[in-house]
Amino acid sequence: MHGPMKGISVTLRFTPHLIAAVRTMSSTTVPPSPALLQPLNVPYRLLLGPGPSNVPPRIQAAGAQQVIGHMHPEMFQIMDDIKKGIQYAFQTQNPLTIAVSGSGHCAMETALFNVVEKGDVVLIGVKGIWGERAADIAERIGAEVHLLTKPPGEAFTLKDVEKGLSEHKPSLFFITHGESSSGVVQPLDGFGELCHRYNCLLLVDSVASLGGAPIFMDKQGIDILYSGSQKVLNAPPGTAPISFSEAASKKMFSRKTKPPSLYVDMSWLANYWGCDGKPRTYHHTGPITNFFTLREGLAILAEKELRLPTVTTVSVPVGYEWKDIITYLMKNHSIEITGGLGPSAGKVFRIGLMGYNSTQANVDRVLDALRDALKHCPKSKI
Amino acid sequence: MHGPMKGISVTLRFTPHLIAAVRTMSSTTVPPSPALLQPLNVPYRLLLGPGPSNVPPRIQAAGAQQVIGHMHPEMFQIMDDIKKGIQYAFQTQNPLTIAVSGSGHCAMETALFNVVEKGDVVLIGVKGIWGERAADIAERIGAEVHLLTKPPGEAFTLKDVEKGLSEHKPSLFFITHGESSSGVVQPLDGFGELCHRYNCLLLVDSVASLGGAPIFMDKQGIDILYSGSQKVLNAPPGTAPISFSEAASKKMFSRKTKPPSLYVDMSWLANYWGCDGKPRTYHHTGPITNFFTLREGLAILAEKELRLPTVTTVSVPVGYEWKDIITYLMKNHSIEITGGLGPSAGKVFRIGLMGYNSTQANVDRVLDALRDALKHCPKSKI
Repeated sequence: MHGPMKGISVTLRFTPHLIAAVRTMSSTTVPPSPALLQPLNVPYRLLLGPGPSNVPPRIQAAGAQQVIGHMHPEMFQIMDDIKKGIQYAFQTQNPLTIAVSGSGHCAMETALFNVVEKGDVVLIGVKGIWGERAADIAERIGAEVHLLTKPPGEAFTLKDVEKGLSEHKPSLFFITHGESSSGVVQPLDGFGELCHRYNCLLLVDSVASLGGAPIFMDKQGIDILYSGSQKVLNAPPGTAPISFSEAASKKMFSRKTKPPSLYVDMSWLANYWGCDGKPRTYHHTGPITNFFTLREGLAILAEKELRLPTVTTVSVPVGYEWKDIITYLMKNHSIEITGGLGPSAGKVFRIGLMGYNSTQANVDRVLDALRDALKHCPKSKI
Repeated sequence: MHGPMKGISVTLRFTPHLIAAVRTMSSTTVPPSPALLQPLNVPYRLLLGPGPSNVPPRIQAAGAQQVIGHMHPEMFQIMDDIKKGIQYAFQTQNPLTIAVSGSGHCAMETALFNVVEKGDVVLIGVKGIWGERAADIAERIGAEVHLLTKPPGEAFTLKDVEKGLSEHKPSLFFITHGESSSGVVQPLDGFGELCHRYNCLLLVDSVASLGGAPIFMDKQGIDILYSGSQKVLNAPPGTAPISFSEAASKKMFSRKTKPPSLYVDMSWLANYWGCDGKPRTYHHTGPITNFFTLREGLAILAEKELRLPTVTTVSVPVGYEWKDIITYLMKNHSIEITGGLGPSAGKVFRIGLMGYNSTQANVDRVLDALRDALKHCPKSKI
């Protein structure tokens, strides 16, 4: 049996040794920093700069989810959802559509590393910082880099580009869609067709523009398009959507040398993202919670666009009869709105704001009328 | 004034046009995927594989924080905290200590891309998948790669490595500390000294081992050490700690060519992480919420180690007198525990479990005794 004295004696006997041991450790090891014992300080900021933008509560909640394995079937489902979400956001049917495990800059490298080989001729449209960066990366690859420059604030014309294409005969032309450094949106119609006529691939950076300015990858003949997660998609930074056309894939997968990077080698990433029809094998551990948040950002985009901008549906407030309110509006405010139709019958109002009627004044008018109706129409106890 | 008929007629007049417009759009554009209209599905899984591991609630909460700008002072403070946390976890005083914006594989590339130039001789210890990957990357750089192989399940000896160093005269030797593919921990004592005797830098992959098996970067003479966020540090994947010794920095910053990648170019990243004494400039948008979660993972590590493993402090339960409980334990269970000391006096019990007394049975015994004391000691109304 253990007596109390024994416990005490053990403590006393060991303590000087322990103190000595800790002293010895302190002199040769690195102690933990007091800064890390302070709580995490994240002040609230309204982010109206060129990105990142604030994250909606639904995406914050996705970022707080427990992690699952990067090779679990549910993770692959989420990655498949992301692929479809990017296809929608990019307006493309390219099977080779993924999210890179890094920032928009990492996607820029992914594009150039995979499609450009040493000695390839590359034409870079420079009208701000992004073109400069693309040129820097292409030079690191050992490409023959030619610059097509415009003063910041101006956009390239088809004529500008055709001159560059005919002069240099590049295999790739890089251009920025949303030049966030100067605030210019580059028109893209006709550039794909033009490049293809010169046997050249069109690479477009849409980090700052995607979802905010219209882009149609397939229709506009863009061969490689990438963006970031932290702008219009409203997810935290850390992932970057990218898509490759058939022509880009062909150039990429028939190259003679390996790309400079294993981390963003598209032959590995295509498999990891289930794009090559083979069973997925381990490449790297994807940023799991960033995939959750990117998926939600893309889902919000999909849902938003499913809401017809011309007809707004509003749930019938609990306790009210929908017909009473519609009748009240017509009788007292001379406004027609309608009820639901088919599966939404009895559940919603449908308020149309189209063409000539689509004005701020009419929005205010119908809202005032609805407020009035809710005051005067009979309401059952809930 | 608008009459009701006007609203109706507008709606009727516009509707066929709208339907036609939507039909035209459908045939040329990509619709949103129904999969994205399903809710995000993240099942709970206990992750006892080689990583990622489950994320504690505190880190989940950090992942749900609203984002702030990547160049805000509070962000730089968090990055400074991360640097100090990594210095502690790695046991290094290297100023060039940062987290890469990518997975552990991205850190592997960061190490090799920055320290190895085309034509450099590199020796890679291969005893599983990680050595193979390192060799793949070094070959992409254009290095002269030599392999030192061991069957999976075995570790390298100093003798093995010395043979390789004297035969090939490499400028870099790569070795995996925790070989998660075979379950082997590579002993590291003496390897740094040996490499330096042969004018060779020592690069160690500790993605699967950091925090679980002891590692002392400075003491063991490791020149480049990297890990991942998702193993012992318990943060979601997406960031990777890395540190460079003075000798590694010297080789890195006196290279003749630029590293293959701009994204992980350490001359840029050193500035972004405030390691070069110059004002920080924009390089890329770091994964902001991953920095929050990594910071918390490192903070937990720092706090844990500040808790002396030999003496456990327990808060005195509200409503009890600490002295009653200590007296009760001694009188009825022959167990000594003590109260607080100095600033903790009256607030905590101190329970020592050291040397001979540090057994599972004694933990159970003191817990049973405390339960008994809480039942029988006087408790004031709270």
